[in-house]
Amino acid sequence: VSKTVDDSQRPRLILASASPRRNDLLVSAGIPVEVLPSLVDETLGRGESPSAFVRRLARDKAEAVARLAGDNWRPILAADTVVVVGLDILGKPIDRHEAQQMLERLSGRAHQVITGFCLLAPGVMHQEEVSTTVHFKKLRTEEIQTYLNTREWADKAGAYAIQGQAAFMVQKIDGSYTNVVGLPLCEVVESLRHLGLLWPVPHAESSP
Amino acid sequence: VSKTVDDSQRPRLILASASPRRNDLLVSAGIPVEVLPSLVDETLGRGESPSAFVRRLARDKAEAVARLAGDNWRPILAADTVVVVGLDILGKPIDRHEAQQMLERLSGRAHQVITGFCLLAPGVMHQEEVSTTVHFKKLRTEEIQTYLNTREWADKAGAYAIQGQAAFMVQKIDGSYTNVVGLPLCEVVESLRHLGLLWPVPHAESSP
Repeated sequence: VSKTVDDSQRPRLILASASPRRNDLLVSAGIPVEVLPSLVDETLGRGESPSAFVRRLARDKAEAVARLAGDNWRPILAADTVVVVGLDILGKPIDRHEAQQMLERLSGRAHQVITGFCLLAPGVMHQEEVSTTVHFKKLRTEEIQTYLNTREWADKAGAYAIQGQAAFMVQKIDGSYTNVVGLPLCEVVESLRHLGLLWPVPHAESSP
Repeated sequence: VSKTVDDSQRPRLILASASPRRNDLLVSAGIPVEVLPSLVDETLGRGESPSAFVRRLARDKAEAVARLAGDNWRPILAADTVVVVGLDILGKPIDRHEAQQMLERLSGRAHQVITGFCLLAPGVMHQEEVSTTVHFKKLRTEEIQTYLNTREWADKAGAYAIQGQAAFMVQKIDGSYTNVVGLPLCEVVESLRHLGLLWPVPHAESSP
């Protein structure tokens, strides 16, 4: 059973992520989404590079949601972000102590933030990953303690949120900023367009 | 007449700017401010470089507020931001048409965002400017029109706000992100510290 819909009624993109930051970024670009997170095994494979890892996880998440959504499925976007410092991948800290260790490692040096994303639609599978270099200033002990008190580190890869109270720690970045927030918005929007998955932006009006 | 105050009662930094974005950035770093904007002549001097221009305006704004505040003055922070593309400085657009012209110039190329800031306190005068390179993707006509409809361009140097609905236009940046928002937070916080103008952050607590 299908029904005719006008553009404002077109099915929304499904965002396979519980991250409110990814949702906010898409909404800011005029792309309303429906959130449908999925649980996948996030174990790093032996010898797997960070890029291959986020690519695989994004695809796993998208495919898990496609299975949930059944044959009545809509375009699905999934993403996974990791922080890479030296040879190590930093995920989400399990507690305050681990968060402190992560921030101490990031202090006074550069690290990479890599997001892999996957777009899935009937006949379409697009994967891409984007890397941004982030330079932290040298953090003082009390700056780390103050930040840990905000509890903003919880549920954040690398134990910080660049768009939050950690903004003052970041001297400079090289690459996409929204990628560090969790979704490389420019690349995602361009991909949606090229794949024909982006409809006229709802708030577009003719100019007066 | 002076009175003894504890740290939480110390006089707030005066922010000589009406920009809610600068206020938000400082608050995110645990630095509450009192806003006291000033009006200064913003005419570019003949042969004046963008760096010299923002430096001078930031100092003019800080000194104007110091005069307003009289001899009972507190530390003052002022800033000015411009967008530089090629040899031209883009200020705030006067209308939708000029905003459109600015976005068309920024499309598909790199530009610089330069913020000068000035810190003024008894016996202290610190000036600094920070430059960030911003790369815009090639904008489609309908993307520009849609953005103009949001009216977000009003009151923004270069006719866009990187932290708003223009985020998807930015492919990458090289340098400080908060500088593009309007205040290079890392540099401002470090300067406040070095000058002895930063007190313990109010929400700092000992760890449990």
